[in-house]
Amino acid sequence: MNVSPFAGPAEGASQEEGTVLRPKFDRDGLVTAVAVDDGDGAVLMVAHMNAASLARTIETGEAWYWSRSRRALWRKGETSGQLQHVVEMRVDCDQVAVLLRVRVGGDGGCCHTGRRSCFYRVVPIGQGAAPALSEAPAISR
Amino acid sequence: MNVSPFAGPAEGASQEEGTVLRPKFDRDGLVTAVAVDDGDGAVLMVAHMNAASLARTIETGEAWYWSRSRRALWRKGETSGQLQHVVEMRVDCDQVAVLLRVRVGGDGGCCHTGRRSCFYRVVPIGQGAAPALSEAPAISR
Repeated sequence: MNVSPFAGPAEGASQEEGTVLRPKFDRDGLVTAVAVDDGDGAVLMVAHMNAASLARTIETGEAWYWSRSRRALWRKGETSGQLQHVVEMRVDCDQVAVLLRVRVGGDGGCCHTGRRSCFYRVVPIGQGAAPALSEAPAISR
Repeated sequence: MNVSPFAGPAEGASQEEGTVLRPKFDRDGLVTAVAVDDGDGAVLMVAHMNAASLARTIETGEAWYWSRSRRALWRKGETSGQLQHVVEMRVDCDQVAVLLRVRVGGDGGCCHTGRRSCFYRVVPIGQGAAPALSEAPAISR
């Protein structure tokens, strides 16, 4: 077991207004991480971080996630070259999620399907509860 | 028990390339939802949706979440007036997360602390694993 470098979560103002990073990990020990492109703000991906990956990201300025499928620390882009250099990190009010502004290495993409963003399909609104998806026009890198 | 209107998750290309919405709910029955402002793309909040809230959001074009703390369907903005009109919804590659572009009602804010975005604190990078947070300059509404 690694010891987390982070303080435990608190209640109310300590959590929401304080200057202490107190990640509120879920029962799997994870917070949600959203990566947006520093260039145009496009949302690239949603993933998760455990204490070790969060600490490593903060220390190194490179995005490290926790792969839930592989159950392993995941240095984003290690094989693809699509490393994520973290320009800014933010944490949300109750400290259950972090937001990364990243500069992407390699070909500038993020999704394992080859697209720039994982959010490439549109869910039509107002056409029933389970409408057919359509692919969004590609956004430039 | 409500019956989900959605198909169950599949493997590989059916999940990632298909036109069928097959949300891959976690063991709590939730997908992650990220809301960004349609005006400037600012990330406003990260929350969760169960099948009922996802279906209602798609049907009505208003953002409904699942409150994990209250264990209840949550019509965002019902009391604050900060309703979220969904301009576009997208789903990610493995269908574990949705991205909403929203037009915010009321005073245009989102966070229960009074800020526009829940992501108002910066986590400094490269200054150790648990640096002191600082409040980011407010962004206009």
